[in-house]
Amino acid sequence: MTMNQRLPRLLHLNVNILHSGFVPSAWRLADADPLAFIDAAHYVRVAQIAEAAKFDAVFLADNASIADQIDFRPITALEPTVLLASIAAATTHIGLIGTASTSYNEPYNLARRFASLDHVSRGRAGWNIVTTADIGSARNFGRDAVPDHAQRYTRASEFADIVKALWDSWEDDALVADKASGRFIDVGKVHPIAHRGAHFSVQGPLNLPRSPQGHPVLVQAGGSPDGRELAARHAEAVFSASQSLEESAAYARELKARAQACGRGPDAIRVLPGLTTIVGATEAEALRRRDELVDMIPWTYSLNRLAGTLGVTADRLRLDERLPGDLPLPANGNGNHTFFNATLAQARRHGYTARELIRALAGGGGHRVVVGTPEQIADDITHWFNAGAADGFNLMPDALPGGLQDFVDGVVPILRRRGLFRSEYEGSTLRDHLGLTRPANTPGALRETA
Amino acid sequence: MTMNQRLPRLLHLNVNILHSGFVPSAWRLADADPLAFIDAAHYVRVAQIAEAAKFDAVFLADNASIADQIDFRPITALEPTVLLASIAAATTHIGLIGTASTSYNEPYNLARRFASLDHVSRGRAGWNIVTTADIGSARNFGRDAVPDHAQRYTRASEFADIVKALWDSWEDDALVADKASGRFIDVGKVHPIAHRGAHFSVQGPLNLPRSPQGHPVLVQAGGSPDGRELAARHAEAVFSASQSLEESAAYARELKARAQACGRGPDAIRVLPGLTTIVGATEAEALRRRDELVDMIPWTYSLNRLAGTLGVTADRLRLDERLPGDLPLPANGNGNHTFFNATLAQARRHGYTARELIRALAGGGGHRVVVGTPEQIADDITHWFNAGAADGFNLMPDALPGGLQDFVDGVVPILRRRGLFRSEYEGSTLRDHLGLTRPANTPGALRETA
Repeated sequence: MTMNQRLPRLLHLNVNILHSGFVPSAWRLADADPLAFIDAAHYVRVAQIAEAAKFDAVFLADNASIADQIDFRPITALEPTVLLASIAAATTHIGLIGTASTSYNEPYNLARRFASLDHVSRGRAGWNIVTTADIGSARNFGRDAVPDHAQRYTRASEFADIVKALWDSWEDDALVADKASGRFIDVGKVHPIAHRGAHFSVQGPLNLPRSPQGHPVLVQAGGSPDGRELAARHAEAVFSASQSLEESAAYARELKARAQACGRGPDAIRVLPGLTTIVGATEAEALRRRDELVDMIPWTYSLNRLAGTLGVTADRLRLDERLPGDLPLPANGNGNHTFFNATLAQARRHGYTARELIRALAGGGGHRVVVGTPEQIADDITHWFNAGAADGFNLMPDALPGGLQDFVDGVVPILRRRGLFRSEYEGSTLRDHLGLTRPANTPGALRETA
Repeated sequence: MTMNQRLPRLLHLNVNILHSGFVPSAWRLADADPLAFIDAAHYVRVAQIAEAAKFDAVFLADNASIADQIDFRPITALEPTVLLASIAAATTHIGLIGTASTSYNEPYNLARRFASLDHVSRGRAGWNIVTTADIGSARNFGRDAVPDHAQRYTRASEFADIVKALWDSWEDDALVADKASGRFIDVGKVHPIAHRGAHFSVQGPLNLPRSPQGHPVLVQAGGSPDGRELAARHAEAVFSASQSLEESAAYARELKARAQACGRGPDAIRVLPGLTTIVGATEAEALRRRDELVDMIPWTYSLNRLAGTLGVTADRLRLDERLPGDLPLPANGNGNHTFFNATLAQARRHGYTARELIRALAGGGGHRVVVGTPEQIADDITHWFNAGAADGFNLMPDALPGGLQDFVDGVVPILRRRGLFRSEYEGSTLRDHLGLTRPANTPGALRETA
């Protein structure tokens, strides 16, 4: 068990700024700005609420294509590093985690963009590594099919190795900047990486001094065996998806054991499951809010989305019937295993009809949803945290900024009274908040092992 | 002649934020922060000075590799779109032009990043299109050699076509966002681009509504025939390099004629030569400042840099001798023709020794340098502007922010008294400042012609 090594162990909280909120109809609420999804000021407002509450980070999902069903809801639109730089300018402490794909970027460009964000934010950047499984993205980058799962993950692993080597290509004291002597950079401390691998050849060095955190924090979300292996090797925080405490605790144990097998420390990874929150003054009020929000989503949209998660066409599902008994894991390894498994388990456990399941998921794609009073939600979080099922949560409030404000006003004070969550930042970098060490500089490490 | 169509014709001024300033030793000045090149606050400060003076835009150069001689000077480090997003948050009107390479990016990613910047800044983004000729960059992206000149430019032209088509893939009124009906996007107004070309296949649409300017402003700097053709087809502003008024006037005439031959309007392009300014209370003081700055650069560095511009090894040059008579245009089409020609012409015209030439260039790579009193510099600018040799200038002050402040305090008031430069912004977008129209949306245009 690696859970009790730091005393007192504190909870970590991120907010995943899914534009107007987790529930696809959040943009239709009376107090919502429907164009928030393309307004930097909206993201800044959410980040400032989270920073005032001393959250660890904001998190931005990403995808480089347009999804099928865009008639009824906002999409992931603004490019995360551009948007996070904008948030950085309006905040001082909160971490800034952005998603970017290893399948449709070049490692030199990506290493540079996140290191730039780390400089601009004075040590608050994080990169959420994804491999991107949708055909729409593939077609925007010259491919007629999604690269297969194994190939995406070998590319991702090589990609992450290169990015880390580039981040280490300047020793920490390479920058001299001595006006008297005129010596600016000690070129003996700036090293090429000379990488030649299966997917990439990158000479280096990066054209940027080592960033405040050494490495921006590496985040990953993989639930498949390949994804877990990638996380064990590289991730410092995982954005996981589990519907049950037991599954999540088992996942955390396995991941931390795998990381140790890779030679990493017992405290190297924070497990932060996704958690959608719907807060009410009473449980009945919270449930009513959930149902009102879900009812504002067209049912055809929700049914299609559920069918997509389950890898079937919508005509296999009936809103007021239980799910079919024969739903195999989507073929070709490119389905999202995590959400398939979580969704199906949830339906079977409770014997839900499709409509009931859609309500229980708050219209969503598989992440866990808690609905209730601040006390009930704080109890749930405390229980998961104390049981080792989570080191914290990647929160996805039902609607933004309102749902986050409700959480901050109602749940956070309870977590503080229980000694589980900070009242002030103790440091200024994302690594400080997450309790992660700054990586030592190991120039040439990739070269020697490549 | 296309010069006198708008009355009154007004001058355009950008500041090229070359980290600590144009002269490589600027970081060594007593009042300079030597680490300014990686400090977003420095760039923000420069942008705020330029905005207070009602400049059109800030401009950021870029390169995705480290140059050879980094011992003695800062480098282009922070990625431009990340840095410009940070500047956007601290300014309200000034344009934000960033450089990005068509050789080492994917059109979908680049279209998205600049459109995101345009959204985040509410219509102030510009993209400076470069093809990147250095071997260091090639080696950071899996290549052992620089792609040849013609190939780089055919790729660049296809790349720009795709980027524009992606920016047009949403009609202006595709975003409905009607809370009452629940209709968010009119999918009939969002179009794939279905591009299949020699270098790229991109399906589209972009996952981002059309940005405030329709297209971020397209900027280009090509001086070669291929570069001029690319500029004539795509550029709305060119960052040119001419040492003489006659050359610059001829360049402007030719480019505008080429643009008209491409079916573009007579007023479609602004010609903005690079101009380094060194301001003094007297001409003697300004010259003394220039020489002091140049003398703070190691002469071996300056000689190597000059040799690089001329495509020879440094042992061909002697500091106190005139340049050799036999200096052919660098072979293989990958030298920088513009700076080679400008530098050589400057040396021949005045019969300079290498040392004198380096002083005249303020240690730089070929852009024109004006040294003198505010009145002298304003006269030079006025003369070029009235002669049709420039629609404005991409200013590269000797040192930043000091050299820009000197220009703003001394030169700008004179230009205003002459009725050549604005006292207030009339609009809020970069297109407004440059007097460029917002492009009509032409969905499917690429598809039909491709």
